[in-house]
Amino acid sequence: MYNNTFGNLFRLTSFGESHGKAIGGVIDGFPAGIVIDMDFIQQELNRRRPGQSAITTARKEADEVEFLSGIYEGVSTGCPIGFAVWNTNQHSNDYDNMKDVYRPSHADYTYTEKYGIRDHRGGGRSSARETIARVVAGALAKLALRQLGIQITAFTSQVGPYILEKDYTQYDLTRIEENSVRCPDQELAAKMADYIYKIKGEGNTIGGVISCVIKGCPIGLGQPVFGKLHAALGNAMLSINAVKGFEYGQGFGSMEQKGSEQNDIFYNENGKIALRTNRSGGIQGGISNGEDIYFRVAFKPVATVLMEQPTVDRLGNETILKARGRHDPCVLPRAVPIVEAMAAMTILDYYLLNKTTRL
Amino acid sequence: MYNNTFGNLFRLTSFGESHGKAIGGVIDGFPAGIVIDMDFIQQELNRRRPGQSAITTARKEADEVEFLSGIYEGVSTGCPIGFAVWNTNQHSNDYDNMKDVYRPSHADYTYTEKYGIRDHRGGGRSSARETIARVVAGALAKLALRQLGIQITAFTSQVGPYILEKDYTQYDLTRIEENSVRCPDQELAAKMADYIYKIKGEGNTIGGVISCVIKGCPIGLGQPVFGKLHAALGNAMLSINAVKGFEYGQGFGSMEQKGSEQNDIFYNENGKIALRTNRSGGIQGGISNGEDIYFRVAFKPVATVLMEQPTVDRLGNETILKARGRHDPCVLPRAVPIVEAMAAMTILDYYLLNKTTRL
Amino acid sequence: MYNNTFGNLFRLTSFGESHGKAIGGVIDGFPAGIVIDMDFIQQELNRRRPGQSAITTARKEADEVEFLSGIYEGVSTGCPIGFAVWNTNQHSNDYDNMKDVYRPSHADYTYTEKYGIRDHRGGGRSSARETIARVVAGALAKLALRQLGIQITAFTSQVGPYILEKDYTQYDLTRIEENSVRCPDQELAAKMADYIYKIKGEGNTIGGVISCVIKGCPIGLGQPVFGKLHAALGNAMLSINAVKGFEYGQGFGSMEQKGSEQNDIFYNENGKIALRTNRSGGIQGGISNGEDIYFRVAFKPVATVLMEQPTVDRLGNETILKARGRHDPCVLPRAVPIVEAMAAMTILDYYLLNKTTRL
Amino acid sequence: MYNNTFGNLFRLTSFGESHGKAIGGVIDGFPAGIVIDMDFIQQELNRRRPGQSAITTARKEADEVEFLSGIYEGVSTGCPIGFAVWNTNQHSNDYDNMKDVYRPSHADYTYTEKYGIRDHRGGGRSSARETIARVVAGALAKLALRQLGIQITAFTSQVGPYILEKDYTQYDLTRIEENSVRCPDQELAAKMADYIYKIKGEGNTIGGVISCVIKGCPIGLGQPVFGKLHAALGNAMLSINAVKGFEYGQGFGSMEQKGSEQNDIFYNENGKIALRTNRSGGIQGGISNGEDIYFRVAFKPVATVLMEQPTVDRLGNETILKARGRHDPCVLPRAVPIVEAMAAMTILDYYLLNKTTRL
Repeated sequence: MYNNTFGNLFRLTSFGESHGKAIGGVIDGFPAGIVIDMDFIQQELNRRRPGQSAITTARKEADEVEFLSGIYEGVSTGCPIGFAVWNTNQHSNDYDNMKDVYRPSHADYTYTEKYGIRDHRGGGRSSARETIARVVAGALAKLALRQLGIQITAFTSQVGPYILEKDYTQYDLTRIEENSVRCPDQELAAKMADYIYKIKGEGNTIGGVISCVIKGCPIGLGQPVFGKLHAALGNAMLSINAVKGFEYGQGFGSMEQKGSEQNDIFYNENGKIALRTNRSGGIQGGISNGEDIYFRVAFKPVATVLMEQPTVDRLGNETILKARGRHDPCVLPRAVPIVEAMAAMTILDYYLLNKTTRL
Repeated sequence: MYNNTFGNLFRLTSFGESHGKAIGGVIDGFPAGIVIDMDFIQQELNRRRPGQSAITTARKEADEVEFLSGIYEGVSTGCPIGFAVWNTNQHSNDYDNMKDVYRPSHADYTYTEKYGIRDHRGGGRSSARETIARVVAGALAKLALRQLGIQITAFTSQVGPYILEKDYTQYDLTRIEENSVRCPDQELAAKMADYIYKIKGEGNTIGGVISCVIKGCPIGLGQPVFGKLHAALGNAMLSINAVKGFEYGQGFGSMEQKGSEQNDIFYNENGKIALRTNRSGGIQGGISNGEDIYFRVAFKPVATVLMEQPTVDRLGNETILKARGRHDPCVLPRAVPIVEAMAAMTILDYYLLNKTTRL
Repeated sequence: MYNNTFGNLFRLTSFGESHGKAIGGVIDGFPAGIVIDMDFIQQELNRRRPGQSAITTARKEADEVEFLSGIYEGVSTGCPIGFAVWNTNQHSNDYDNMKDVYRPSHADYTYTEKYGIRDHRGGGRSSARETIARVVAGALAKLALRQLGIQITAFTSQVGPYILEKDYTQYDLTRIEENSVRCPDQELAAKMADYIYKIKGEGNTIGGVISCVIKGCPIGLGQPVFGKLHAALGNAMLSINAVKGFEYGQGFGSMEQKGSEQNDIFYNENGKIALRTNRSGGIQGGISNGEDIYFRVAFKPVATVLMEQPTVDRLGNETILKARGRHDPCVLPRAVPIVEAMAAMTILDYYLLNKTTRL
Repeated sequence: MYNNTFGNLFRLTSFGESHGKAIGGVIDGFPAGIVIDMDFIQQELNRRRPGQSAITTARKEADEVEFLSGIYEGVSTGCPIGFAVWNTNQHSNDYDNMKDVYRPSHADYTYTEKYGIRDHRGGGRSSARETIARVVAGALAKLALRQLGIQITAFTSQVGPYILEKDYTQYDLTRIEENSVRCPDQELAAKMADYIYKIKGEGNTIGGVISCVIKGCPIGLGQPVFGKLHAALGNAMLSINAVKGFEYGQGFGSMEQKGSEQNDIFYNENGKIALRTNRSGGIQGGISNGEDIYFRVAFKPVATVLMEQPTVDRLGNETILKARGRHDPCVLPRAVPIVEAMAAMTILDYYLLNKTTRL
């Protein structure tokens, strides 16, 4: 639940640095008897993989996962699932000039102060390459959730000044993969892509917002009071690199609305209790209520810009840094599957927790 | 870390329903040897107490804490600190008409579905009265942090349409307690108070934003990758009743700014490494960097409005509900010490965790 | 799982010192919907209560539990169950002469060295009075296990040189409460009682062994590899005051037996898989196999003897200590319900964990 | 703390089956800045390795560890240490006849019942080959403890009827590695080896006892009440395959001794508080007191005997099983480093926990 382990009953413990031998982890508490669809898992990794389009980093990495345990004849055994994704295309020399220099708004300074030592190559452990392990574990979680009829879909809803205006219910979320930005509005997606491409040309970077919708979540997930479902989702999202904010339901918006305007009214729909609106975002009192769960995640612009920046080295000497290497101008498109992965792990964990509510 | 326990090394396990015998808890992992300033703890509870001003609920509750263990001759012993705050002014009859009726946007429906049973009186466990235990534990955490030179200050920065425009550094945060809203801008505070009073008169409610600043936090707190300091803070804040969002540093704002505009530049200030800006919000790579930590927390309007609302009962029968009882028109003023308490617990927990980084 | 919290999903967090205001705790994760039989709980506390017979301490304590939350109209709600047992008969003056003196083989020295401070009265937190909280939580666990058909019975199987010779299957375990020692062999029980009475007269103390049998445990409890069921039971038992050893199945005995002699042979009994013997003690590979689980727990003699002992004070000055107060000559009879309580909590916790093995 | 994760702050999460691709794990919370002595780690693995003498299994496995992360330029970085030991000499065909047959006193039946699926080859996850991960993590822990002056030594003290009679203080524990049994009495070791060799010839197996001594442990380790140091050690030992019992200090022995005979008396030795005896086994009130910690661990005979045994298959059909494969006649010699490893991990974990006792 801290350091390098995520989750309570379904747990990922991850390891690996950007330029080390591998990124990997151990998935524990995965239910026994789930058929492991390897193609699906690789497809999820491909969605996160660098070099997938003109607006992502040019790095080429195979990012193929090798499972080391816990699966027998294609089925999960209930034993821990060890896995590794081997690092193969590392250009560590790109980082030689940064060995003792602190990149602005990166983790270089804080890691060094905390641990007294740091693998500087490619950002080491603080690299977003670490999220590979999350995508693997999230893909497994999705396989389990699929059996439960739970679907998780994330998409880019803002890039710099370009904002998806309408509510998610107004879009066809099955068409997100049709553009490189992963935005359900194809026209807006084109503008976002152009904008990112332009930013990339400047050697600069830009942030944005990813939205996520969880459909089919049963009533009852959430462990009040400190394990409220949205607190767990927020914790999961805020653990992703570059995330600066999380909101669900009405969130920070609609602050001028009064209680009478925000409450979701119950009614009887053909004998079943139903809700006229879902301003709560599918969670009430920290527990899922069966409606769509939706939330938004804010990402800052990538800190690595390909332009000269003043900074200091470890000894405090002022210097000028110009990053080399291959970097993303905008993390959003590749972060979409990561948001989904963290959501999937959280929901599966809370599904398992909820099984223990009654004898 | 879920259900009713918060924290890793410094841990609060809380209990209690709104109309039960007591709200209380056990604080474990509190460092030995801390002098317990009882007046300070009660003062913190008073900041949260209902009935403190014209814009809060009219309920009168003493909210005095009784410590049951873990303190000997006024000093913490390192043993668990049990405590109780006795419920004394409960009007349970106010809730008789809600026994089987689901209040809109409350936890009534989800608790019933999850647990199959629920103490409906005053919201039971889902009542914000539960936060008393947080304020007690937070006050203890503050006593420890005080010895470390760490100060935590929260304040109301938005109520409905009224927004504190300037950066927190432009205000005197020591003057927050001078108005009933707990806003550092005294003029704006007066407007907010008037507005809340008006909303109260309508039987309605309104939400807003609480901001929080942590000063004096040492470098190095945060346990990457899943225990990033801001993820822990976000988790803590999202566990508070009525919270819908969390952001730190630039958060959801400034999305049009590029990486080159958002990066915090290092320089050498008289031989020490320093930062020209603090857009990161005091945390980089999930680890505190010694700058002020600041974040914002979104609260929705209280769901209990004193007007008729359509709803259903447990059997799905449609009905009209009119809440009785004494309720807050705006939770913000009383939530300020709760935000501080959750922040204090998180920081102390992470301070202790960080002590184990090196041998 | 450490400090003052026991368990994973079903969890007791306890607090309280021997001469403080109360012993109590919070029980979290207790399944919703269990009818709380208050008489049964008090009966369990009575089995542990001092002063129940001529061979226990003469202290008189009511030891009545007051529940503070989590129970509504006599049924568990799934919310945390806070409780307190008020201390009423403390003779703190009995300990004035021990304030700065370290009692031999007690926790006085180690607590002082670890925490720098200690409530010396009655042993403070290290007093066996702490086990009251375990008995309360264990009684609740038993109520849940009863619904599952799981029965836990502990009994005294050795006191000093008096040893129960035969296998537990040779005795009527329903007759344990018929004598003050809680031994199923009534004749041996009488000898044990006489012996304890004699030891008491000498101002001395004696240890022994408690055995425990768990019947009706379903197949599948146990979370390999680090959560083997017997490891959890061992951990639970070793956390009880004065316990020095734990063994299950063949344990330390029968070391001259070879593998071929110790293996439990499967056979087909009327179409069902059955075992000819149960030398494994009901657990194989860390997982319950449906047979009786049985184990033994070694207790050392109580360290408080009513005779003069040389010792030192906090400053290292040598001195002579003669304990006052009312103490047990033999902890075994009153420890029987404590062993059962810890077993019940463990089994319920592992039952809940096992519910999450498959989707 | 359950399933496949061991420890609180220093944590091993392990994975791997006997005949899968690898045994490995992730070590989290290992202090930053420790020089990693690779030769030492391999040497520890060699002590556990099969085929090391005439009295162990004839299997040949290189058992070389490959570290995948967390170490930079030979020093621990505070980031998670992933590692794998590749399986290279698996004869899976040896197990073809056991695919659906339940080996007596193995985990075959319970794993199948719990998980509904099982990798039967070589015992799968329930194989003692899993302990490789423990030895790797334990070797790292030892490197940290070495800096603290803490030494851990285990040795074989009983094999079948052959028992080390005298107290551990009477032997030279540095000479344990001089014989294949790892017993400090060279003459007795020879008899034990002969006996094991004879048992092996019979196709049978034998159990015994491993003792362990921890020297140089500082005062103060242990987290009462549920995290008593000996409870943690007991839990650790009982999690090792084939372990049936744990005792420390006087344990199950000396039951005829009275309190006055078992108490350890304090005295003043040249101005320092000292103890005349150490019957407590270095732990009082669950906290280390600075004396030697010693404990004993009971191992049952290996369940795999190379003789015909009646049993059943998955469908309940009775059959005769004759194990093939290469097996240990006695697990004790190779289990000595495993006991040490579990002790080392526990002590390091509790050392780190104890650092958080005071501010």
